[in-house]
Amino acid sequence: MDKNALRRMSYGVYIVTAKDGEKESGCTANAAMQITSEPMTIAVSINRENYTNELIRAGGQFAISILAEDGDPKQIGKFGFMSGRNKDKFAGIETLTVDGLKVMKDSCGYLTCKVIDTMETSTHTVFLGEVMTYHTEGVLREKPLTYAYYHEVLKGKSPKTAPTYLAD
Amino acid sequence: MDKNALRRMSYGVYIVTAKDGEKESGCTANAAMQITSEPMTIAVSINRENYTNELIRAGGQFAISILAEDGDPKQIGKFGFMSGRNKDKFAGIETLTVDGLKVMKDSCGYLTCKVIDTMETSTHTVFLGEVMTYHTEGVLREKPLTYAYYHEVLKGKSPKTAPTYLAD
Repeated sequence: MDKNALRRMSYGVYIVTAKDGEKESGCTANAAMQITSEPMTIAVSINRENYTNELIRAGGQFAISILAEDGDPKQIGKFGFMSGRNKDKFAGIETLTVDGLKVMKDSCGYLTCKVIDTMETSTHTVFLGEVMTYHTEGVLREKPLTYAYYHEVLKGKSPKTAPTYLAD
Repeated sequence: MDKNALRRMSYGVYIVTAKDGEKESGCTANAAMQITSEPMTIAVSINRENYTNELIRAGGQFAISILAEDGDPKQIGKFGFMSGRNKDKFAGIETLTVDGLKVMKDSCGYLTCKVIDTMETSTHTVFLGEVMTYHTEGVLREKPLTYAYYHEVLKGKSPKTAPTYLAD
């Protein structure tokens, strides 16, 4: 076996946000992909330990902000390595509100989705969302950040709750 | 709405192969991602019209070959724009056999998976596979091809059955 095989799969880097009434949070994610074009649907894999999982489930919606190569890496760390249960992750972060959900201005695009199905796995929930809005209006960047660039150039890490976490 | 938001999501380019007894085929795919790390699982989205969907369902297994930036683009076209129902897509293609499934030598790595769950959507099946083998042994390349590079540099197209198909 050779872990390079796994490292050679390609991903973007996203912040997935959700809301349940007044409670609102988000987490950094790489496992997001379009599943169908008609209707347009997107799947995301979110660890059940993440507060965001609970909020998506309760609110029935999620938003995806597509992070950019030249964006502020601190945003990734803030949403990736802290829990939103006791902390307002949005403090100091510029956001837009789309379909009632917060998305990041420091991104190169966003989508909002209504959950239409879920698949439970050992540790993660795969949420299937029908896209309500997809746009680039109001964002600051254009060039998507890839997971490879995040690791190789920005020297970023993955938390233990990531689908792609690999112990060295 | 702005389709650039969808185009800014990042993917790799893969050939997903499957087998049912003597019947064996594969198709080009971009929608593949790791879902969990323990146990290691991968999800792929495959159109129900694709012969490969039928073979994964019947055989209960699939393999993913991770295509490379410097690989032969003809391989992508052969597996992406023709049906394997009446044609042997593997003719003239160098393969390795791993866990009984064919994977491409012209790739930068491969994984084989046993199907443990499925989610049906409007047009595609999301197959969740538990990884049996992940390796780079015997492959010819190292640098993964991204979907962005395939479109922007290789000027590649997506078939109508792709999850990410966008009419212009």
